[in-house]
Amino acid sequence: MMANYQFRTADHIVAGPHSISRLGHHVKASGLKADHVLIITQPSIVKLGTISDVQAQLTELGMRSDVCTDILPEPTAQNIAEVFADIREKQYDMLIGIGGGSVLDGTKILSVLHTNSKQIEELLGTNLVEKPGIPAVLIPSTSGTGAEVTPNAIVTLPEQELKVGIVSPFLLPKLVILDPVITLGLPKPITAATGMDAFTHSLESFISNKANPISDMFALESIRLISRSIVEAYENGSSIKAREDMLLGSAYGGMALTAAGTAAVHALAYPLGGKYNIPHGVANSMLLPHVMEFNMDAIAERLSLAAEPMGIAAANMTAEQASRAVNDQIKEWTQALNIPQDLKKYGVAEHDLDELANSASKVTRLLNNNPKALALNDIKGIYQKLID
Amino acid sequence: MMANYQFRTADHIVAGPHSISRLGHHVKASGLKADHVLIITQPSIVKLGTISDVQAQLTELGMRSDVCTDILPEPTAQNIAEVFADIREKQYDMLIGIGGGSVLDGTKILSVLHTNSKQIEELLGTNLVEKPGIPAVLIPSTSGTGAEVTPNAIVTLPEQELKVGIVSPFLLPKLVILDPVITLGLPKPITAATGMDAFTHSLESFISNKANPISDMFALESIRLISRSIVEAYENGSSIKAREDMLLGSAYGGMALTAAGTAAVHALAYPLGGKYNIPHGVANSMLLPHVMEFNMDAIAERLSLAAEPMGIAAANMTAEQASRAVNDQIKEWTQALNIPQDLKKYGVAEHDLDELANSASKVTRLLNNNPKALALNDIKGIYQKLID
Repeated sequence: MMANYQFRTADHIVAGPHSISRLGHHVKASGLKADHVLIITQPSIVKLGTISDVQAQLTELGMRSDVCTDILPEPTAQNIAEVFADIREKQYDMLIGIGGGSVLDGTKILSVLHTNSKQIEELLGTNLVEKPGIPAVLIPSTSGTGAEVTPNAIVTLPEQELKVGIVSPFLLPKLVILDPVITLGLPKPITAATGMDAFTHSLESFISNKANPISDMFALESIRLISRSIVEAYENGSSIKAREDMLLGSAYGGMALTAAGTAAVHALAYPLGGKYNIPHGVANSMLLPHVMEFNMDAIAERLSLAAEPMGIAAANMTAEQASRAVNDQIKEWTQALNIPQDLKKYGVAEHDLDELANSASKVTRLLNNNPKALALNDIKGIYQKLID
Repeated sequence: MMANYQFRTADHIVAGPHSISRLGHHVKASGLKADHVLIITQPSIVKLGTISDVQAQLTELGMRSDVCTDILPEPTAQNIAEVFADIREKQYDMLIGIGGGSVLDGTKILSVLHTNSKQIEELLGTNLVEKPGIPAVLIPSTSGTGAEVTPNAIVTLPEQELKVGIVSPFLLPKLVILDPVITLGLPKPITAATGMDAFTHSLESFISNKANPISDMFALESIRLISRSIVEAYENGSSIKAREDMLLGSAYGGMALTAAGTAAVHALAYPLGGKYNIPHGVANSMLLPHVMEFNMDAIAERLSLAAEPMGIAAANMTAEQASRAVNDQIKEWTQALNIPQDLKKYGVAEHDLDELANSASKVTRLLNNNPKALALNDIKGIYQKLID
């Protein structure tokens, strides 16, 4: 029997420039009702004035709202637990997360903490959340994680030097708003790292051992949108069209990875985040060309199918030539977008590589999705390329 | 301000050969709980043995179940109201619809009748359903309507000679199972008409005035899958691969039309269904080449983009040549699949055309999506081609 495959995402996704300006309308159209809303966001977004506009729209719907900016970047479980301790007695009945992946994941976890009498540590793993959370609305301010459409949320456990995930359909939000306008001001390094992170989600989903017809559609469309716009979004951050492509491409990347899983890039990125606090998007984008280089001989046929959506004129190429052209393009982006390629900057030393490789080798859930097996030495060799 | 666009579909979609054999697993994974389930289906599917297998799986989950085969093809509002009168006191807490578009639409309507104290006639229109229904699981047995993933349900009002719709997000099911195995036995004429119906959904969504980046992705992928497999599914009905393409293509067509709306083909099909009882898929597939012919000069650029997904080598063609090649392909299919091209067979006479055109001209909700305006005479001219 062939394996079944599946698709599951946010209940309602609204997209397009200025869609946040109609947040009130979309909340109502989604059938969401609430008395007291907590808006979870980050200081940079409060400064834009976006939050006061959102609050005004909620007031018009008769909803009171407060604002919380206490979720930290790459949050620890303790950080989220402390925020929950602060807010639980306010009895919020809806959460709106507006921010990068950390804010969105934090919002998702806070949503289910409200209804499941459990500690975060008890929810780590797959399907350990027992009840739907309070309704969540997610509005990404970066085009990268796709966290707004995935049933996953990642936290850091610093004492164990680990990043670990909660996986549950109850983490999916009721409403997602994809407004490219909110991403116009993203600084260049974040545009680059989060954009390549989104690309990584799609490319890894596409070559994953669990790739299937549903994940392939989202992966290839994401690859197409990101490929045509990532350099433009980086060089001309105020291009709404490029930002819209990146935001849709990022959401589709989230859908692709939900359906197919990611692979070795993500497995090797986890220890970089857990121990050295390297942001998830940066870690993924650093690793991508090197892991693909390693995978090359095992994925030529498959990778060649990404050439045409990437805008590579591959009609007269062999599969090997086309797959090589795909990875050459990735390497060119790494240069053009100034993706960091030096782990030493983040405090990693040569003598740390054995331990890093050892940690990565334990992320078997993702390594199993990789089309080529990685021995401990292979993993170390990939890290090595980022330290020479 | 550019218009916003949106995406909303079934909560959870499972696909792949033999996915029905794991229905119990998928129901559980979707978090669905029920004591007493009504399976709504049609006699042809009961004969396959599928229903007794489904019932056995429900029994294992501790759920009692009954079977209903009383929803008629192209059901009237009265038919559905009568079924509801029969079942309401049984207090079912979950519905499973397994069948063609009529069974699926009927199941969706029965779901919301359980929780909204309204007559069907009071729900006709957009967003008039006030409360979520009881949970519904939908399993299509044809690859055509995409009803399993749309928030629409159509009923016939014979006294008004009309087909009319209920549109509400509460019609979306909790779980969809896309199992190509259940479609293997579809007779040729139904494979042809429903397949071209699905293609029509995607092509009309793609040229709709409301087309957008989300609907385009689903429309083009649907066009790609259907184009490569519709003739194979027709000629070799037992090909699981072709049937799987058609089933996914049909679901994506439903997603595309939800996001972008259909246009003149559907507007002209409604009166054929309402007054002459022509099945929805047959009416759409009869009309498609003629409406596209009419649209041609207004949509050359757009239609040319469908050429490559349809497998037409269009690299060196002008937009006009490519769009012409697209419609030539549609006309070839109409021949190869023996799509009916004679309204007289369905009791339509020459002198009925004025009234038909008049009825169609009132479906402004869909005609407004058409890229070219249709005068009364244009509509009559299209019907005329199906009667000569």
